[in-house]
Amino acid sequence: MERLFTPGPVELPERVRGVLGRQIIHHRTEEFKNAFLEVRELFKRLLESPSENFVFFASSGTGAMEAAILNFFKEGDRVLVVNGGKFGERWMLLARHWGLEVIEYKLPLGKSADPDRIREMLREKPCKGVLFQISETSTGAFHPYKDIGKVCREFDTLCVADAITALGVYHIKPEEDNIDVIVGGSQKALLLPPGLSVIWFSERARQNLTDRAFYFSVSKELKKQVEGQTAWTPAISLILALKESLSMLLEETMPKVEKRHRLISEGTLQAVRVMGLEPFAENPAISVSAISSDQSEKIRKELLKLGIRVAGGQEELKGKIFRISHMGVDPKDALMLIGVLEVVLKKLGFPVELGSGVKAFSQRLLEGGLW
Amino acid sequence: MERLFTPGPVELPERVRGVLGRQIIHHRTEEFKNAFLEVRELFKRLLESPSENFVFFASSGTGAMEAAILNFFKEGDRVLVVNGGKFGERWMLLARHWGLEVIEYKLPLGKSADPDRIREMLREKPCKGVLFQISETSTGAFHPYKDIGKVCREFDTLCVADAITALGVYHIKPEEDNIDVIVGGSQKALLLPPGLSVIWFSERARQNLTDRAFYFSVSKELKKQVEGQTAWTPAISLILALKESLSMLLEETMPKVEKRHRLISEGTLQAVRVMGLEPFAENPAISVSAISSDQSEKIRKELLKLGIRVAGGQEELKGKIFRISHMGVDPKDALMLIGVLEVVLKKLGFPVELGSGVKAFSQRLLEGGLW
Repeated sequence: MERLFTPGPVELPERVRGVLGRQIIHHRTEEFKNAFLEVRELFKRLLESPSENFVFFASSGTGAMEAAILNFFKEGDRVLVVNGGKFGERWMLLARHWGLEVIEYKLPLGKSADPDRIREMLREKPCKGVLFQISETSTGAFHPYKDIGKVCREFDTLCVADAITALGVYHIKPEEDNIDVIVGGSQKALLLPPGLSVIWFSERARQNLTDRAFYFSVSKELKKQVEGQTAWTPAISLILALKESLSMLLEETMPKVEKRHRLISEGTLQAVRVMGLEPFAENPAISVSAISSDQSEKIRKELLKLGIRVAGGQEELKGKIFRISHMGVDPKDALMLIGVLEVVLKKLGFPVELGSGVKAFSQRLLEGGLW
Repeated sequence: MERLFTPGPVELPERVRGVLGRQIIHHRTEEFKNAFLEVRELFKRLLESPSENFVFFASSGTGAMEAAILNFFKEGDRVLVVNGGKFGERWMLLARHWGLEVIEYKLPLGKSADPDRIREMLREKPCKGVLFQISETSTGAFHPYKDIGKVCREFDTLCVADAITALGVYHIKPEEDNIDVIVGGSQKALLLPPGLSVIWFSERARQNLTDRAFYFSVSKELKKQVEGQTAWTPAISLILALKESLSMLLEETMPKVEKRHRLISEGTLQAVRVMGLEPFAENPAISVSAISSDQSEKIRKELLKLGIRVAGGQEELKGKIFRISHMGVDPKDALMLIGVLEVVLKKLGFPVELGSGVKAFSQRLLEGGLW
């Protein structure tokens, strides 16, 4: 069996698989309603917010991104898009598709957004929203969401964060962090198969709700979902399984979840440096590590031969980076990956001393107090 | 464990549950690609058509209905909508939402569309499309899709069939049946959890493809899906499980699948008549039987106490009908339901002779050669 270290889908925990393999229940039942309301309570605890302003969709994450554009913006609205890779690009495509005016904050691949630059740009041209990724999955770059949130608050600007590979990784507290819209997807750190997405929004964002969407209508869904139902048929199995995965995150507690991802990320990058490779992102996201190498496709293939799947680069980054996901990963498995990577690099002729990467990794975890 | 006889979700076969409980695989792999291409081949066999003109979405059925409106029609296009219940109403809402001009062919609840009337209406006001349900799930009425298809062909009109509770029930052959767009959903006779939808279209429909949709873009998905990939992250587990459920349908063969549904439907309605109740639909769909009774909510509750879930009426039909799904149902289970219904009716004071409904049911199945 292949082991996945890909930035979505991530491997499903046993507890989640147990639910997915069960016989289905009907969604117009007390049983589903109670489970769904419980999932909503757990989700509130995840974000440490009592707000009911969030809905789930039966769709992939892109669907919830579209929902953000359709529900909170009107044709002609001007938005600033942080474009530092494939998913920043997706915000641009979506915003333009639905008739928004896009001011592009284009970043070299691997670079992180500079909040001061966003402030300048907003001063120059006021925008109704700033759209960005907390973790730009295509480059492994982190965009400093708290600082971007603060800048948005200085202006009359909605802070719209694609958290598809950040929710369930970072300890996001939207009210404290000044985020107005958060978009998430199931197959990332929410530890489920793809097919469920979520959108959370502030009261400030709610004032801007439009009725432009049909399937992705936030207001239609919200009305139903606060009562444990949905406007359209929900992804029943994924909602039920989400109860397990959210419980797992909350049992670990979000500060510890973030710490785990941070230490695994730092340990992995430290190990990679010891092995002579370099991180691609200037300021790496802790959900996924992108690593530069013009041998990346060879490395990926050799890892696959030993049963480990990591992701390659997309589009212009193909053949230039490979990407290791830390989402939902147990530290022991992260160590295993480093050990196998040592073997693979050695086989490919890299001057790697076996054990050196693992040593660096374990040291970081011990220092950090995770081990 | 509650037994589901609801028109979606329907109970999951063991073969399907086995796949759903497995560890996930990545979608950018040969393994997924091959499985997806195999699913596409099976789907072609289901419709007995070599055409590659179909795509799957990660969404509920309503999403694919929206895709039909967004991809094949433009703002201002005029469409004729057969509105015989809640799902006819949904076509109207969707079409109007996206700026289409709607000519409503309003039917009393429980009645079926008359193809001659559609011909008259199209003569009076030409329309770009006729939108209807093959099986109007809210009333159990069948709309004669082959005859509607013929009428559409007489005019320059796209025949758009919501087959959400017809696909995997009726032996639909779109080319022969003159259907241009077919919409399906996973949690019905495709025997999966909700969260996957499908849209099939004719070459004639393809000529009308627009680029108005983003998440629900048929052209973006088609380009990828013919190669075993998807534009956005697919509902991986449901695609893999669809291989099982399509295989099951094809092993049984579609003529036999339709015959099974037809005989169970006829047997059930015959049994219900013997028990003194009346079918609600004039021309019943074979996917779901709606049965009239002002005691329907009591009947539903008593059935539930004995572990059987059927559906009630929706909106104005609440308390007036109950609905029994035959989708994916084994004849023995259908018999069991009739037997339990006898008990429940007797308990509620209906003048029912125990065994009489079951006798009528079994006789119909024997006559029909299913038993």
